[in-house]
Amino acid sequence: MWQVPTRVLMGPGPSDVHPRVLKALSTPLVGHLDPAFLALMNEVRDLLKQVFGTKNELTLAMSGTGSAGMETVFVNLIEPGDRVVIGVNGLFGQRMADVASRCGAEVIPVTAPWGEPIAPEAVEKALKQADGPVKAVAVVHAETSTGVWQPLADIGRLAHAHGALFIVDAVTSLGGVPVEVDKNGIDACYSGTQKCLSVPPGLAPVTFSPRAQEAIRTRKTKIQSWYFDLSMIQQYWGEERFYHHTAPISMIYALREGLQVLVDEGLENVYRRHLELGRRLQAALEDMGLVLHVAEAYRLPQLTTVRVPEGVDEAAIRRRLLEEFGIEIGGGLGELKGKVWRVGLMGYSCQMKNVVLFTSALRQLLAEVR
Amino acid sequence: MWQVPTRVLMGPGPSDVHPRVLKALSTPLVGHLDPAFLALMNEVRDLLKQVFGTKNELTLAMSGTGSAGMETVFVNLIEPGDRVVIGVNGLFGQRMADVASRCGAEVIPVTAPWGEPIAPEAVEKALKQADGPVKAVAVVHAETSTGVWQPLADIGRLAHAHGALFIVDAVTSLGGVPVEVDKNGIDACYSGTQKCLSVPPGLAPVTFSPRAQEAIRTRKTKIQSWYFDLSMIQQYWGEERFYHHTAPISMIYALREGLQVLVDEGLENVYRRHLELGRRLQAALEDMGLVLHVAEAYRLPQLTTVRVPEGVDEAAIRRRLLEEFGIEIGGGLGELKGKVWRVGLMGYSCQMKNVVLFTSALRQLLAEVR
Repeated sequence: MWQVPTRVLMGPGPSDVHPRVLKALSTPLVGHLDPAFLALMNEVRDLLKQVFGTKNELTLAMSGTGSAGMETVFVNLIEPGDRVVIGVNGLFGQRMADVASRCGAEVIPVTAPWGEPIAPEAVEKALKQADGPVKAVAVVHAETSTGVWQPLADIGRLAHAHGALFIVDAVTSLGGVPVEVDKNGIDACYSGTQKCLSVPPGLAPVTFSPRAQEAIRTRKTKIQSWYFDLSMIQQYWGEERFYHHTAPISMIYALREGLQVLVDEGLENVYRRHLELGRRLQAALEDMGLVLHVAEAYRLPQLTTVRVPEGVDEAAIRRRLLEEFGIEIGGGLGELKGKVWRVGLMGYSCQMKNVVLFTSALRQLLAEVR
Repeated sequence: MWQVPTRVLMGPGPSDVHPRVLKALSTPLVGHLDPAFLALMNEVRDLLKQVFGTKNELTLAMSGTGSAGMETVFVNLIEPGDRVVIGVNGLFGQRMADVASRCGAEVIPVTAPWGEPIAPEAVEKALKQADGPVKAVAVVHAETSTGVWQPLADIGRLAHAHGALFIVDAVTSLGGVPVEVDKNGIDACYSGTQKCLSVPPGLAPVTFSPRAQEAIRTRKTKIQSWYFDLSMIQQYWGEERFYHHTAPISMIYALREGLQVLVDEGLENVYRRHLELGRRLQAALEDMGLVLHVAEAYRLPQLTTVRVPEGVDEAAIRRRLLEEFGIEIGGGLGELKGKVWRVGLMGYSCQMKNVVLFTSALRQLLAEVR
């Protein structure tokens, strides 16, 4: 049998999978229409509602990775010609703009430098200057490419004041910091399983408010994707149990267990663990004389971008961390390529021993090359 | 910890997962850009090429279920206004027509009754009567809704003679009967993992011929799906290793193992096992006085449709098989709803003991109600 090396996953995702989740993955299958599986789907939906902080009935896991969640939101809500204001301050904001434009949207980008949040004032200006009604405003809650923690409430209020839906990318935030879909007025939210949920990549939790559901119901055009068509998928997750596609059964087992692990620990405890250990890691990096890329007020605890010191070969350090210590961290993407390291403390990877291991290893390697 | 009941999966899929695959699923993760994972992706590609029977370089596993494979083929190959001839003789032919039309295709259906194959003559007539060039001809190799085994070679020759690409749905055929992509002149082929590969649902193996790759390369319009955009995805599976989306790592572990299990047994042995046990099951059902829905010449070994005898409550029999024997079989879909049972002998479920168990259980239940 083939083997893979043992890693400590401290990059921008995937994170280490919880042992209970690994065990769940090896459970023999039942069919996707088996009464036992349908009951499990209900449990997943109820657990997702808790973690999303929502009462939305249309809450489920799409059969693809986080980016499939993004595509699900846009193909279902956006019709050709719809105006969408999109916050672009990193790779995933850019991706939203790309996905929306493939749905025929008129994308109105609101930009900020990579490493800064989107300003509500800039969103307001875009909403006021638009040539007509705006269908949706979209931002990334936790920009995986920059480590920025985007405040949501003000932008949500602005979106609603202008009659627009509020779309939030919560791929890296869900289960790490509170998303609070209902309190933040989010109409459509998507995430991934491989970040703070400690589940392998492969599913995209999504949730849609009644307003968003209504927007899907009253579409004038057919949804361009069959695979992501929620008008059909909700009949499988709902009472009808109408066959659409075969659910990824083992991954649903895994998600069920990952969510239960979170709820068993207690969501408040989970958020506190991420916050405390993230701040501890960030303090340790600053103690080493390193510069954090994001201002303190907008710094995610679960994903830290730290600037590569002058004269240091960033790829060589990552390679040595992997080869000599088994630690994976991420490099920079897009504008930040070569300029930062991205260090994750997500889900099961968010442990004190990992903070200590990583900072000690990095200190040692930097001492050797500087 | 939650529990699910133990089942013998003899429906139209998922089938029972091989124990080696279940074990692979519980392997701790490495990152999706880890050198060890990239090596594993190469192994998956090489194994898929063996099982597909192709030299196609563009062979990979899409991050979704079999239907995502279908959508991948159509969104990448078809542009608005393209004519596509689609064989519709069951639910999955209908689905191809739906997916193609959402890509803006002009769909030319070639129909046959549910339970019969598509006649090459009918395809030829459609090609000749089309109002202009036809971009592609698409058929389902193993119609999961009917149990029909579609001959491919003649239709492939006709497609090529008319300058069209040949698209084949191999969801239920791959790993059960020979697909032989290159020998059959198939330009684009997709499958799922949960049928004859003995892997859970969640990935869609796909392969594209150089001609199909050229059709993607020379598109005039942008691919409407970001998630399924092969022009980007092939840069992750190819030498570039360009990040697109996070691969479903655990499922790739599982697919790697499932394919290796097939190759270890030997593909010829695998096909012989399916053929022999399928024919044995079908003979046993006929011995019981039951009528098989598909004529012998077009009967799939891995999926048998058997007509529900007059006066028998088909759903009640399925429920009792599940509850009293732990056996799952499928009911009819679409035109065959309520009229047939669908009995699978796919992958790891294709074992002599399952043939004996199922036929004995069914005989007992039918004796009680007749």
